[in-house]
Amino acid sequence: KQNYRIAVLPGDGIGPEVMAEAIKVLDAVQQKFGFTLDYQQYDVGGIAIDNHGEPLPPATLAGCEASDAILFGSVGGPKWEGLPPEKQPERGALLPLRGHFDLFCNLRPAKIHPGLESLAPLRADIAAAGFDVLCVRELTGGIYFGKPKGREGEGEDETGFDTMKYARKEVRRIAHIAFQAARGRGGVVTSVDKANVLATSILWREVVEEVAKDYPDVTLNHLYIDNATMQMLRYPAQFDVLLCGNLFGDILSDEAAMITGSMGLLPSASLNADDFGLYEPAGGSAPDIAGQGIANPVAQILSAAMLLRFSLKQEAAANAIDVAVSKALSEGYLTGELLPAEKRDQAKSTSQMGDFIAQAV
Amino acid sequence: KQNYRIAVLPGDGIGPEVMAEAIKVLDAVQQKFGFTLDYQQYDVGGIAIDNHGEPLPPATLAGCEASDAILFGSVGGPKWEGLPPEKQPERGALLPLRGHFDLFCNLRPAKIHPGLESLAPLRADIAAAGFDVLCVRELTGGIYFGKPKGREGEGEDETGFDTMKYARKEVRRIAHIAFQAARGRGGVVTSVDKANVLATSILWREVVEEVAKDYPDVTLNHLYIDNATMQMLRYPAQFDVLLCGNLFGDILSDEAAMITGSMGLLPSASLNADDFGLYEPAGGSAPDIAGQGIANPVAQILSAAMLLRFSLKQEAAANAIDVAVSKALSEGYLTGELLPAEKRDQAKSTSQMGDFIAQAV
Ligand SMILES: CC(C)[C@H](C(=O)O)[C@@H](O)C(=O)O
Ligand SMILES: CC(C)[C@H](C(=O)O)[C@@H](O)C(=O)O
Repeated sequence: KQNYRIAVLPGDGIGPEVMAEAIKVLDAVQQKFGFTLDYQQYDVGGIAIDNHGEPLPPATLAGCEASDAILFGSVGGPKWEGLPPEKQPERGALLPLRGHFDLFCNLRPAKIHPGLESLAPLRADIAAAGFDVLCVRELTGGIYFGKPKGREGEGEDETGFDTMKYARKEVRRIAHIAFQAARGRGGVVTSVDKANVLATSILWREVVEEVAKDYPDVTLNHLYIDNATMQMLRYPAQFDVLLCGNLFGDILSDEAAMITGSMGLLPSASLNADDFGLYEPAGGSAPDIAGQGIANPVAQILSAAMLLRFSLKQEAAANAIDVAVSKALSEGYLTGELLPAEKRDQAKSTSQMGDFIAQAV
Repeated sequence: KQNYRIAVLPGDGIGPEVMAEAIKVLDAVQQKFGFTLDYQQYDVGGIAIDNHGEPLPPATLAGCEASDAILFGSVGGPKWEGLPPEKQPERGALLPLRGHFDLFCNLRPAKIHPGLESLAPLRADIAAAGFDVLCVRELTGGIYFGKPKGREGEGEDETGFDTMKYARKEVRRIAHIAFQAARGRGGVVTSVDKANVLATSILWREVVEEVAKDYPDVTLNHLYIDNATMQMLRYPAQFDVLLCGNLFGDILSDEAAMITGSMGLLPSASLNADDFGLYEPAGGSAPDIAGQGIANPVAQILSAAMLLRFSLKQEAAANAIDVAVSKALSEGYLTGELLPAEKRDQAKSTSQMGDFIAQAV
């Protein structure tokens, strides 16, 4: 198949402007690699609340269902912060999409690009050792979706409760993905749990050990989440693939993203068993800089590359984008937030970045 | 009352050697401040497994019950790592002690001492902004102790599960402690939760808001745990008191400890409603350096100071120890791990540190 339909969900804040650059780059590769993309745009998040009264309107969901993949921008902003949790743009759009499409596999690469070490919040010698991890996070289980979840009791005895739970098969399928990914990278999986306290983690660890037997060429380590959070600061270069449940993956992938100091460069993919997926930048909607043409479109562009790779199996086109982005970064073609104060006048705009990368592919 | 009984649980690894220095310092203050301490020593952790077949033998628990406070060293080591989780030294000793004595309030101060900024794993400009936080962690609730917890089902459908839960009264009592602590510090409480996903966190946030009304002089902020983990790296100087449930407090207090880069200086206290408490260093048993006389006793000594302050109400004696420790650090009287490689020959031994501090009080 050489014609694909992409559901484009720009969302709020900088979402629309970085999305425009991702589309620019996708347009460039579709010509070159001989496939066509049909973009269908839908409201999501805050703008969907404003236009349709809910963060994930039925038309948006139907549009996603009719597509080969979802390219997601970012959602949220001060305007909608007062809403109850389940109505808020981020949570109200992302969790239902993950659940509806069974997007159990979340891939979040985070690395310090050569030349951008000084952006990392880490001590220079630690950042210089390098950092290049892939967080493989289970995304449709654990305490996010476990039942029962709610409230009971009265007065001061009223209790709020959530259930963390994993079945062997859920752990197994995400573990296989981590081990396969490690084969194509540094060959090390670090599984993160809290097996000294949680029954869920004891089962998690057992299954990960079983899966490891199928990958004798991959090294498996286990770390408790509290220790992992520390090791990530002490010696981040030790990590390759991090395998986590939903909650620990949420925490650790954000810590890893912050360690790079360049959130605007980090893409992510959320996949189901049929390689259908949702692709989105790791950063947020950054309402403070929206509309100024200064937002970094790279994370959105790299998310588009992941979409080509994982959902459309257009590996060559995906690689061309990755290479073009690396070229931009290594030539110092950067948006302002990646530049030291004294070089800010050399900052490229959102659309200049998109133009450069589209031309380079 | 001027005569107190202290249950001394040195444990494994460096536990016994740093404990000896804490006792040295306690001996010095009891003379000076006119009270007497009766130390009763008990096995705990790995050595208790070796001698009595379990990490927390009945005699140890009975000894703790008969005391005014527990001074705990550190437990664990490679010898006992193969044991099942609930039999392991750390988990098998600490969780039952916390549960048995209802030690719901865990206080973990973490700061970068002036002059020791270069130990922090953070970029120099970030560390230079300073870091001085108090983690107030709920310690007997949440997903650690929530029921049901266990396994069910067969084969690939077999599930491991845990329950996170908090009652209003549990949140309320720990929140009051955080707000009171903030009054004596920077006047800011940051409550950490995951209220966009967890029902427990929604209740947590409601109660914290209610408690905040009693402290109009204290500023309250809320952060999601994933964001808190990031902000701690980006701009740690923004934090004063961190208020967390059991699991998020485990993760965030360890991140905060690592940010100081000087784990050997950090004490902790775990208290119940009657101010009975267990006091222990934040770091582990460090079996790799045990018995060499090079371990830093400061965390154990500062834990003894917290014991005097919170359980024995001997504030003057506690302050004298804090001041003596600050004097040692500011005069560059340091154990080896706090010194740069080229100054390691100036390192003080474990007992030299203890002697200096005992003399200075
Ligand atoms: C918005 C929120 C529900 C979400 C999560 O916790 O998974 C976000 O933090 C993320 O990591 O994508
Ligand atoms: C040993 C373990 C059960 C414990 C915890 O998770 O609370 C430890 O990490 C701590 O923070 O004191």
